[in-house]
Amino acid sequence: MLIVKKFGGTSVANKERIFNVAKRCIEDYQAGNQVVVVLSAMGKQTDVLLDMAKDINPKASRREMDMLLTTGEQTSVALMAMAMDSLGVPAVSLNAFQVAMHSTADYSNAKLKRIDTERIYNELENRKIVVITGFQGIDKYDNYTTLGRGGSDTTAVALAAALHADACEIYTDVDGVYTADPRVVPKARKLEAITYDEMLELASLGAGVLHNRSVEMAKKYGVQLVVRSSLNRNEGTIVKEDTKMEKMLVSGVATDKNVVQISVEGLENKPGVAFKLFQHLANHNVNVDMILQSVEHGGKQDISFTVTEEDAEEAINTLDRHKESSLKCDKTTVTRDVAKVSVVGAGMMTHPGVAAKMFEALYDCGVNIRQISTSEIRVTVLVDEKYVEDAAEAIHDKFSLEK
Amino acid sequence: MLIVKKFGGTSVANKERIFNVAKRCIEDYQAGNQVVVVLSAMGKQTDVLLDMAKDINPKASRREMDMLLTTGEQTSVALMAMAMDSLGVPAVSLNAFQVAMHSTADYSNAKLKRIDTERIYNELENRKIVVITGFQGIDKYDNYTTLGRGGSDTTAVALAAALHADACEIYTDVDGVYTADPRVVPKARKLEAITYDEMLELASLGAGVLHNRSVEMAKKYGVQLVVRSSLNRNEGTIVKEDTKMEKMLVSGVATDKNVVQISVEGLENKPGVAFKLFQHLANHNVNVDMILQSVEHGGKQDISFTVTEEDAEEAINTLDRHKESSLKCDKTTVTRDVAKVSVVGAGMMTHPGVAAKMFEALYDCGVNIRQISTSEIRVTVLVDEKYVEDAAEAIHDKFSLEK
Repeated sequence: MLIVKKFGGTSVANKERIFNVAKRCIEDYQAGNQVVVVLSAMGKQTDVLLDMAKDINPKASRREMDMLLTTGEQTSVALMAMAMDSLGVPAVSLNAFQVAMHSTADYSNAKLKRIDTERIYNELENRKIVVITGFQGIDKYDNYTTLGRGGSDTTAVALAAALHADACEIYTDVDGVYTADPRVVPKARKLEAITYDEMLELASLGAGVLHNRSVEMAKKYGVQLVVRSSLNRNEGTIVKEDTKMEKMLVSGVATDKNVVQISVEGLENKPGVAFKLFQHLANHNVNVDMILQSVEHGGKQDISFTVTEEDAEEAINTLDRHKESSLKCDKTTVTRDVAKVSVVGAGMMTHPGVAAKMFEALYDCGVNIRQISTSEIRVTVLVDEKYVEDAAEAIHDKFSLEK
Repeated sequence: MLIVKKFGGTSVANKERIFNVAKRCIEDYQAGNQVVVVLSAMGKQTDVLLDMAKDINPKASRREMDMLLTTGEQTSVALMAMAMDSLGVPAVSLNAFQVAMHSTADYSNAKLKRIDTERIYNELENRKIVVITGFQGIDKYDNYTTLGRGGSDTTAVALAAALHADACEIYTDVDGVYTADPRVVPKARKLEAITYDEMLELASLGAGVLHNRSVEMAKKYGVQLVVRSSLNRNEGTIVKEDTKMEKMLVSGVATDKNVVQISVEGLENKPGVAFKLFQHLANHNVNVDMILQSVEHGGKQDISFTVTEEDAEEAINTLDRHKESSLKCDKTTVTRDVAKVSVVGAGMMTHPGVAAKMFEALYDCGVNIRQISTSEIRVTVLVDEKYVEDAAEAIHDKFSLEK
């Protein structure tokens, strides 16, 4: 078997944890498998490097930022190879250039294009554990790139696809994917399996134990993933295409408090108003999530949308700048104490009534719905932040997810 | 003009110093020059990385060690490019792989073989300051290598040679090359110029402000160097081939306390004894410096030699292991409180009597000579460590070096 194993920054944050990971990889190696290990930078190392850069130049170019950040994973893979060597198992560390991991040139948010496998296969044939830097690539001019936060998951999936690996294991600090965040819903249950699409919805809802792009890539190349803990031996959750898996109506409830609702009131009701509004926001890199357009009243209408807390400031400033000249609205209001609660399940495509059941649960516990948004396999409501735990628990109960 | 400027770790140890270096490079850039900057790792960063590695695996492979260490310079060049950018001057950082700096595969002590200049020329033509990692290379399999401590000087000289640079400036924390260590001989005077050969002798004697191999490479490719301070604007010392330069009898006095004398007494006086002795030491990577073989007395002879303090332990252990079986000597004695004092000067090739004058100076101040060694342009004596300052000052006076 060829196994790709990915460990995040907390799993390699210090000497003890590095050896813990090394031993876990060596078990697979000594059982006769070929082992490829993908690592992130140690602990808070990426943040340390970001702070160093910020101190020198708060507007540092992304090209130089990636040049700086890629030292983080190079440090962890070298130390890991040293740890494995000291345990008597030959290992070799490789970075994005040595592998070669070709990517686009979108510094800080590059996409992997092609991975050369020759060097990796050669090292595996020499019975070495191959320890590879996650999160990084090189563009066609040999500049380093990074894949964005959490990009090491994507590296692992891309490697599993390129190497036709038999298994791709993503190690995190949780046991797997749960029906809800156990800190919010104590009865939450670990799922044995989940589909790519469900995982994608959960990831984008902030319940993500996996980087979104990594799940998309796994789906595209049919790479079956296992999400499991680096701290224990529990089975974890399998992420795969929906085949023989029991099709659950709802597989989980996700909550996300990192939400700000912005309402633009009194807009003219004519073509191009929504376009202008969201064009301004897009020009300032504000990522808009749930959108609600009100019914017209007196020739005017309101538009509400949600953004993350990080984007809120920029969104508000952008609206202020264009309020009079371009948007011609009466006023904007900002509500910070809101949160999203979602149910996700591949089964709801063929079973109507999921939304109604969810709304019933919310009604039962007296939670008011501010906004609704849906996809084929997801229903999301925006509620007051103080109700988020009650709402999640009520929905979890209503769908009997603890069973 | 194309100028290569090299700054060591202390010159980029913190934000303030990074900006100091950036400004200095920008002055040359704004005067219309093409500027290539070579940097070492920040401050004690290399030591920090070495300690991390040691903690994980005290016998880490040199290949992985170099993988780890090369992150140090990559960090400093990225931060430097960010600093220059923030001062409004476009800069780009490049590491050994991006340049490509081809080297041998002797990890931790590689030799540069060939430098690709295309990328550097392209960036210079785009009017960028090019900031390059010193100390590192890549072997033919794309593994990172390092050039050994002080190797950034070599990188700078090799770049100056490959780019046909008009100037190669090595910035250190001293003003240039002195007739003696000013802490030992207060009257020591800064030299305006010195030949490659003199600099080589001084470097190997521990008075080195320049890495030995960098001087050899400068000599080989005829790269004229300037050694000057990154802390002030003083002129510095030019290192070049001896051409029109006034040929000084003696250009400097060097002292070195990092010396241990080892004597092997009562060896048989027959062919192969010295060979065996030094073969054993070479097999254990002990670098032997001054060697003295005594005149035979009663069919026996003694051999004394010096090593650095770092090598002393290994040398003593090696001799102990082979004392009875192979070497058949009576005993070995170790003297730790000794030091070397040397005079160096290209002029002494054509002027006899330098050694005699030096010995006279030592006699005048009552310093006993334990051992003597000479080259064409150098005379070295081994003395008791406590006399080293007196000896250096007396010799400095005797040759009137302060003038």
